[in-house]
Amino acid sequence: MSYTPFNAPILAGLLGDREITACFSVKVEAAAWALFESALARSQAGEGMIPAESARAIAQVCATFEADMARITEATARDGVPIPEFVRQMRAIIGEPHGQYLHRGATSQDVIDTSLVLRLRPVIEKLRARLEALQVAFDSLDFRFSAQQIMARTRMQTALPVTVSRRIRDWREPLARHVERLVELSPRLLRLQLGGPAGTLAEMDGKGEDVAIGMAGILGLATPSGNWHAQRDAVVEFASLLSLISGTLGKFGQDIALMAQNEFGEVALSGTGGSSAMAHKQNPVKAEALVTLARFNATLVSGMHHSLVHEQERSGSAWALEWMLLPQICVAAGASLRLALELAGSVTAMGSDPA
Amino acid sequence: MSYTPFNAPILAGLLGDREITACFSVKVEAAAWALFESALARSQAGEGMIPAESARAIAQVCATFEADMARITEATARDGVPIPEFVRQMRAIIGEPHGQYLHRGATSQDVIDTSLVLRLRPVIEKLRARLEALQVAFDSLDFRFSAQQIMARTRMQTALPVTVSRRIRDWREPLARHVERLVELSPRLLRLQLGGPAGTLAEMDGKGEDVAIGMAGILGLATPSGNWHAQRDAVVEFASLLSLISGTLGKFGQDIALMAQNEFGEVALSGTGGSSAMAHKQNPVKAEALVTLARFNATLVSGMHHSLVHEQERSGSAWALEWMLLPQICVAAGASLRLALELAGSVTAMGSDPA
Amino acid sequence: MSYTPFNAPILAGLLGDREITACFSVKVEAAAWALFESALARSQAGEGMIPAESARAIAQVCATFEADMARITEATARDGVPIPEFVRQMRAIIGEPHGQYLHRGATSQDVIDTSLVLRLRPVIEKLRARLEALQVAFDSLDFRFSAQQIMARTRMQTALPVTVSRRIRDWREPLARHVERLVELSPRLLRLQLGGPAGTLAEMDGKGEDVAIGMAGILGLATPSGNWHAQRDAVVEFASLLSLISGTLGKFGQDIALMAQNEFGEVALSGTGGSSAMAHKQNPVKAEALVTLARFNATLVSGMHHSLVHEQERSGSAWALEWMLLPQICVAAGASLRLALELAGSVTAMGSDPA
Amino acid sequence: MSYTPFNAPILAGLLGDREITACFSVKVEAAAWALFESALARSQAGEGMIPAESARAIAQVCATFEADMARITEATARDGVPIPEFVRQMRAIIGEPHGQYLHRGATSQDVIDTSLVLRLRPVIEKLRARLEALQVAFDSLDFRFSAQQIMARTRMQTALPVTVSRRIRDWREPLARHVERLVELSPRLLRLQLGGPAGTLAEMDGKGEDVAIGMAGILGLATPSGNWHAQRDAVVEFASLLSLISGTLGKFGQDIALMAQNEFGEVALSGTGGSSAMAHKQNPVKAEALVTLARFNATLVSGMHHSLVHEQERSGSAWALEWMLLPQICVAAGASLRLALELAGSVTAMGSDPA
Repeated sequence: MSYTPFNAPILAGLLGDREITACFSVKVEAAAWALFESALARSQAGEGMIPAESARAIAQVCATFEADMARITEATARDGVPIPEFVRQMRAIIGEPHGQYLHRGATSQDVIDTSLVLRLRPVIEKLRARLEALQVAFDSLDFRFSAQQIMARTRMQTALPVTVSRRIRDWREPLARHVERLVELSPRLLRLQLGGPAGTLAEMDGKGEDVAIGMAGILGLATPSGNWHAQRDAVVEFASLLSLISGTLGKFGQDIALMAQNEFGEVALSGTGGSSAMAHKQNPVKAEALVTLARFNATLVSGMHHSLVHEQERSGSAWALEWMLLPQICVAAGASLRLALELAGSVTAMGSDPA
Repeated sequence: MSYTPFNAPILAGLLGDREITACFSVKVEAAAWALFESALARSQAGEGMIPAESARAIAQVCATFEADMARITEATARDGVPIPEFVRQMRAIIGEPHGQYLHRGATSQDVIDTSLVLRLRPVIEKLRARLEALQVAFDSLDFRFSAQQIMARTRMQTALPVTVSRRIRDWREPLARHVERLVELSPRLLRLQLGGPAGTLAEMDGKGEDVAIGMAGILGLATPSGNWHAQRDAVVEFASLLSLISGTLGKFGQDIALMAQNEFGEVALSGTGGSSAMAHKQNPVKAEALVTLARFNATLVSGMHHSLVHEQERSGSAWALEWMLLPQICVAAGASLRLALELAGSVTAMGSDPA
Repeated sequence: MSYTPFNAPILAGLLGDREITACFSVKVEAAAWALFESALARSQAGEGMIPAESARAIAQVCATFEADMARITEATARDGVPIPEFVRQMRAIIGEPHGQYLHRGATSQDVIDTSLVLRLRPVIEKLRARLEALQVAFDSLDFRFSAQQIMARTRMQTALPVTVSRRIRDWREPLARHVERLVELSPRLLRLQLGGPAGTLAEMDGKGEDVAIGMAGILGLATPSGNWHAQRDAVVEFASLLSLISGTLGKFGQDIALMAQNEFGEVALSGTGGSSAMAHKQNPVKAEALVTLARFNATLVSGMHHSLVHEQERSGSAWALEWMLLPQICVAAGASLRLALELAGSVTAMGSDPA
Repeated sequence: MSYTPFNAPILAGLLGDREITACFSVKVEAAAWALFESALARSQAGEGMIPAESARAIAQVCATFEADMARITEATARDGVPIPEFVRQMRAIIGEPHGQYLHRGATSQDVIDTSLVLRLRPVIEKLRARLEALQVAFDSLDFRFSAQQIMARTRMQTALPVTVSRRIRDWREPLARHVERLVELSPRLLRLQLGGPAGTLAEMDGKGEDVAIGMAGILGLATPSGNWHAQRDAVVEFASLLSLISGTLGKFGQDIALMAQNEFGEVALSGTGGSSAMAHKQNPVKAEALVTLARFNATLVSGMHHSLVHEQERSGSAWALEWMLLPQICVAAGASLRLALELAGSVTAMGSDPA
């Protein structure tokens, strides 16, 4: 039992997800901060707020800058956010007279929230691709085994025989709705955050809205509808959908684990797990892991909803609670989809011939 | 501290909601079961599955039937669902030869899940109306106090002065998105459930799909896309939205409670609460209640996500977990909106004159 | 699906518990308030703080007073607590010159928290008695079926045959530890709360500690170690134990539901549930309900832990969150024990003869 | 926002805890596995179950063995547990004839659960030492500022002035109870797990109980009361206490954040956090982090309670859910205590002179 479920050597292979984890690496995060600063400077130069030469100098450093993360960690323990130290380091590299134009009129929350959505964008893309691949995988199971029968079971008691197709529908149909939901919420989520210290764009010489439109264009984010830093509904909606996804797949895993019970023999799987003591065991490890991940996200999603109580213009405590939960929820949803794909691909038999 | 938050005399006035609670009364629930049975019989008669005369006899009894709820409670303790006893009672009233055609090819889950969405429909309508009324109430606050200033505060420390409008936007803007979400999810949620014992419509003489389309028309529900009983994603999505709503309003409540601190004096409220010991206290009780309800729903929503792990064709345990949580979440969301409207209406002053 | 799980006619028989629910009735709550006021007056008279005659007059009214609960509900919606109105009503009945001595130096929190522990005391006694009865019931199962075999199963796969005793031990052993925990936490929980408006006993003429000792004696509560109103750890510890109890019994329920699967036939139960559509079904309804209640409490306990963040001398929002959760957790734990006893008593066969 | 709150460079300094994290490192975990195997072999040799020479050979390898963790990670993804591959690797090093005696009669759960409590033991010691240090720190605050006054506040409204001591008591008193709870639960938690594949010690030649007693002595664990693998109550009780601890400290953090509000000025702190945009800000970052950690643990503890529903002799899914949650809860509790100590030590002024 290692202290973190996703990157510890022991459990990462089972319960983690390399691709989604990579979206939250420190390197990727710092790169997203730099991307924000670069787009801000370019957009401000376009509006004549800062010299074009300074914007170029800033963008150039942003493209290659590697922060001293040890000092950022130390500073975060003091400041609660990494941005003050990050900006300090960048300014030292850029030098004057251009450095003074870095981060002009912006604040930590602008950098962090925008960098969050920049990193959630590829997460959404990857999850969507997997949702679609999993529908295909279920279609393929259906094609291969549709003529077979299993016993429908209600309240864990045998009801009546049904086709395998009937069971598979309950796994596949929610996936199409999840894609629909991802499409619906993306424009609410993938928005630039730009507000400045008090959320009013006050230090942008009256050009704040145009700067924001310019930045949104550069970053490929939705046209900003103002400052959403203290309005966390889209972030929590997204976390809720991730938990819907892993919850749905938890049902698939639970069904497979029950079907794989020896007396049932309703499914045969390749690549099952072994035991240290009993050579005959064929443990449906991935099916169980899907249940674990479903309950993990069902647990964590609650804290995201608590973080909606985000007082005043910025809550240090509610915001940090998001940081502790959302990346884990993303990785767990990703791992669920990965495992579901592997599990669907490992089915070698389902149901029995109709009498 | 009474044993249930919503209907106990003591707390119901503060934390409950009469209108939403009424949507989940026993009387309304039994009426929805009867509505299901009546629509089923009428649709089956339309398809020639049962005699038209029987459908009329069934519909007539359904319109006025009052179940013996004491016996239903007793039977539910044994059967886990109230429908077997309900059907038994109805058949005894209808008498033969028509009684045999009641509930034909249907099962408990069809009645209960369809009756659920029939009752969630007015809940959605009421919540939507309140979301719209609350936007108007916030617009009105904005109109009255927009010229006033308050101190923007980040990490509970003073940042810079801003207009009252800036603060109000953070309360109002999420509401429009909540309406958007309600509109998006309604067609996923408000669907007929009809599947029969094994979810296959097997006992409908091959006319199951047409019977379903007929019933959906009669009940005003979306065209059914088959049996969704073991696919709980739309129900959990709805619960998540309800918690998003109460969470958003929890931020409003928390902000008001902080603004009302004596040293801040950023808001004045009429109708505040008194103390048994200190006559001078003006307690922002409704603001605090909004925080309570936000955290209540943030807590309960987790159990809804756990209920997604709904094994096989019907999980007695996961399904009953929904029953224990969803109505409470609905009432809490309703109470949040009621309190937010009352609280917004009680504001007599906000912010201070700009220097 | 009725709006409250415990007192709605439909579900109360399955998922509720009449005895524990009764401990939280409005009548019992108001009687506990009166008991507090009576003990306070008697103790203050003993210390010479108020006239003995006034204490007698107060105690006499307390013994029979029936509050106008409709007005209390209304007042609670305004004040956030019922006590100001309750005291007002009592004073009107007592009349002057004695009424002025009612509630002297006390505050709402004193009445409500003390009345809470007065009502938790019988809950603890009932739960403890059931924990002991259930151990006996499991011993009896063990006695009847110890020679029988079942298959040990790990990861839902057959491992090796074991005696039925081995399985029963996993159900019974935690119960003894739960009793141990109840004994350990009771003195931390069953304490008088008396602090006055600011928690300092300031308005007790310097006799506050003696008044408290006197009251504790009268009420049979532990000697008070001062004002615990803003220290909620014992309350949350108790809620956590209740969830440990229902969680443990959820394992029992889950095991029985799996053992009752038709292909396993490892247990036979009397009094199983019927279906509206399939006469042959023997649904292990109580076993499933145990899983439901375990997950219900596992969900709600989280909110209790959130309520530990109880700011300053009294948090209206954190305190009310307890009120919304704790009684439900108590009833669910009680219902779990009731159902476990019924389920254990309904076992007619377990395991199979060893070959 | 990095993907894991505790070991990512950015947040670890603020929200993590180096000492507690170290207790869950992969290296320490593998060492605890080896310690188990070594104690098992020594105890079995003592009982004459395996040759003394083999036990010596096993113990020698155990003392220095470094596993190939990459292959263990890979195997865990297949087997769900790391032990089969770990045993395979060790056997290869030990060689025959001794290797066959490694892990004799034991199973994965024995190794993992015993290794868990071996690692929780130092966690408990560290937390207890910090709980005691924090009481001293609060005593010191009390000593320095006891004559000062602050305003007692109920429902976030000023009530009456009280001494600073009164407020400090609410922070300190729960800590003594937490120590009491740690002492009470330790013997329930720190127990050897030894059961073999089916939890019956069947493959120990009838000497299982003596082997267990010997191992418990070697490892310094409580005398085993049998196989507790499927009885998770002590583990969940411990997690609940950790969340009680961080919740209590969340109240301290919330109080400090409110006292530090500019208009209140009830506390002055050294080492507060800075802003990227506003030089004048003195953000009470550690106070806010205490609230974050309280809500984080209040969220995660729910999943631990769900894991009590641990079906049959071993639930792959419920067990892995613990693995994903418990280490994080430990680290968060540790970080809470660390931050509370730092925060208490940073107070330079509290309250105001009494008039």
